Amino acid sequence: MGNQEISIREFTIEGRNAVIEAFRSGKPIDKIFILDGCQDGPIMTIKREASKHDTMIKYVTKERLDQMSETGKHQGVIAYAAAYEYAEVEDILENAKKKGEPPFIFILDNIEDPHNLGAIIRTANLAGAHGVIIPKNRAAGLTATVARTSAGALNYTPVAKVTNISKTIEDLKKEGLWFVCADMGGTTMYQLNLKGPIGLVIGNEGDGVSRLVREKCDMIASIPMKGDIDSLNASVAAGVLAYEIVRQRLN
Amino acid sequence: MGNQEISIREFTIEGRNAVIEAFRSGKPIDKIFILDGCQDGPIMTIKREASKHDTMIKYVTKERLDQMSETGKHQGVIAYAAAYEYAEVEDILENAKKKGEPPFIFILDNIEDPHNLGAIIRTANLAGAHGVIIPKNRAAGLTATVARTSAGALNYTPVAKVTNISKTIEDLKKEGLWFVCADMGGTTMYQLNLKGPIGLVIGNEGDGVSRLVREKCDMIASIPMKGDIDSLNASVAAGVLAYEIVRQRLN
Repeated sequence: MGNQEISIREFTIEGRNAVIEAFRSGKPIDKIFILDGCQDGPIMTIKREASKHDTMIKYVTKERLDQMSETGKHQGVIAYAAAYEYAEVEDILENAKKKGEPPFIFILDNIEDPHNLGAIIRTANLAGAHGVIIPKNRAAGLTATVARTSAGALNYTPVAKVTNISKTIEDLKKEGLWFVCADMGGTTMYQLNLKGPIGLVIGNEGDGVSRLVREKCDMIASIPMKGDIDSLNASVAAGVLAYEIVRQRLN
Repeated sequence: MGNQEISIREFTIEGRNAVIEAFRSGKPIDKIFILDGCQDGPIMTIKREASKHDTMIKYVTKERLDQMSETGKHQGVIAYAAAYEYAEVEDILENAKKKGEPPFIFILDNIEDPHNLGAIIRTANLAGAHGVIIPKNRAAGLTATVARTSAGALNYTPVAKVTNISKTIEDLKKEGLWFVCADMGGTTMYQLNLKGPIGLVIGNEGDGVSRLVREKCDMIASIPMKGDIDSLNASVAAGVLAYEIVRQRLN
């Protein structure tokens, strides 16, 4: 099934202030190595930031840190951050064109959990979508966790990052795409026509699709809910809707 | 949409040896509080076990630990473990009977990731399944992570734990259930008849459905895969298949 190795370009950030600064600027830190036994103020700050950002901490010896260090000035802490390259929206449309298929694009309106983002990119790949669009703001970006959870899909499925999801939807409408968002109170998905060039909009884990983005959508699709609780996990909902699109496209 | 509070009965395990022992016996530890600055051998062992089991560690002051302690002998470490009550397979059948519906049961053949288990219980609830069956062995059991990820579904959807999944499938066949498992190389799910009393078998994240269990199944359903990678995330696959069953039952 092709090469599944995940190519992650990583870079290191060394020293206490540099690591604290990286956390505060929102850089995706994947892993931190801290000198075992270190517990002064800055290190405690780093531990707090790491726990806030769900970053793995490994406690290691001075020898290990010295080996890992590129600058020789690690001050007891080295962080690993990942650098990913984003695609452009045009690349996604080009991808569809090359395959001779009507565009099928996932638009994620603020997915915050990197595990969900990874699982959704994985689903997008397998459902035959041509790309995934995410916003630049507080949403999850591409990190090592996302790459891992995507099970290799990140190597194949282009992910574009845009400043304004509503604006991107407008632009894509000019390319002939229709937009469907997943939300409660819409039409049961089985009753919608989801064939043709389509953008599938998935909302935030807690808040759903934002009002502005929802207003841009041509259709609101609901997944039938027979249970006692409110909603499916965002990546499960994305999978269920994506496969309703797959089913309709097969017919 | 009803009460979504998750009722978790928790108990504490105090002291170094007790906590190490709990980890080694496979008890689900949700969270550990360690005296900040402690770093002797047993505490390092506990930290390693915690990182191996993905258990959250909080570093706290002695005063905090003293407050939390029930025994007064915490030795710098207190663990929180959860105690859940499992249902019986009979309760699940009874649940279907009470609702006047043909039984719809999820059978999880070794789901190991608690996030997947939680998301699948959430899906089972919303897809209208009457219960979830998990095996006693190395699979994930009910923990606070599962409860949290299930988004409250654990309060409504009964989960039974059985010694032998194959044997349970045989027993349920006598009750009139048909079994479908998700696997590659089966029939495309849209072409199967998934109405009537049904057990949906979902395999392990890495290995899929085990051979013995697969052999007991009446149907093997495949989700169409158009992408470059091998398989969907287990909870997404469970969602996609469950909703194909929902779709067919609606018709």
